[in-house]
Amino acid sequence: MTATKVNEKINDDAIRKLFEEKNLVFLATLMKDGSPHNVSTWVDIKDGTIFINTVSGSTKHKNISRDPRVALAITDQNNPFHTVSIRGKVIEQIIGDEAEKHIDKLAKKYLGVNEYPGRELDPTQKRVILKIKPENIFHMNYKP
Amino acid sequence: MTATKVNEKINDDAIRKLFEEKNLVFLATLMKDGSPHNVSTWVDIKDGTIFINTVSGSTKHKNISRDPRVALAITDQNNPFHTVSIRGKVIEQIIGDEAEKHIDKLAKKYLGVNEYPGRELDPTQKRVILKIKPENIFHMNYKP
Repeated sequence: MTATKVNEKINDDAIRKLFEEKNLVFLATLMKDGSPHNVSTWVDIKDGTIFINTVSGSTKHKNISRDPRVALAITDQNNPFHTVSIRGKVIEQIIGDEAEKHIDKLAKKYLGVNEYPGRELDPTQKRVILKIKPENIFHMNYKP
Repeated sequence: MTATKVNEKINDDAIRKLFEEKNLVFLATLMKDGSPHNVSTWVDIKDGTIFINTVSGSTKHKNISRDPRVALAITDQNNPFHTVSIRGKVIEQIIGDEAEKHIDKLAKKYLGVNEYPGRELDPTQKRVILKIKPENIFHMNYKP
């Protein structure tokens, strides 16, 4: 897909809504041996860029630091036929205060709480924002 | 993970329940250039084997016919912290009557209807069952 076409599509209202609502995104990355890895995670979107927040040193963090190619999919919780699949690349990693605030923002979105509760699992964890640039978008929106 | 360990884990009650309930599974496969592809789809499980049903000639069908390595993730619709990520391989493809009946069974599970309504999108489509054998299982079950 051309960059213009991708830009138009990612800003499509229905697609943006999928990312803005409380749907989980599933992120596929590549293991060292080239096999895929897939996990669900929180997500948000701004100006056509997709933002994921992970623990520094997680499998997906290690994977995208080695090979930035990712694929993600997000589906409307209320309609399995409304779904988007995106292939693209992680173009930037952000650590520090901005990443810590971002995980709290996502906790607010998904759980309605002010602070990310997952820190109790590992209080030493450092968060990393992964900025993803879409390169190919597949959108299905069908009501059976 | 050893095969024994994988077998024990995939038959864990909480994991089996995730697959038996109406949660969508997200399947990552590999494109020709080795980059990942990720889509949501219906799923069921029997005796530790995972069954997905796709259209013959779909991107995921082409991908696994070239390289059988897959990664799938499934998350409890009601708790984002209850999730399973599995890496494994497609060990068999089944086409014909069994695959057609299987997509109707999945439509019953997910939509409560007797016949798969997606056929109206393309009445000539042929279905394929992908049998997946897990090789590595990550299970998180945490209630914030």
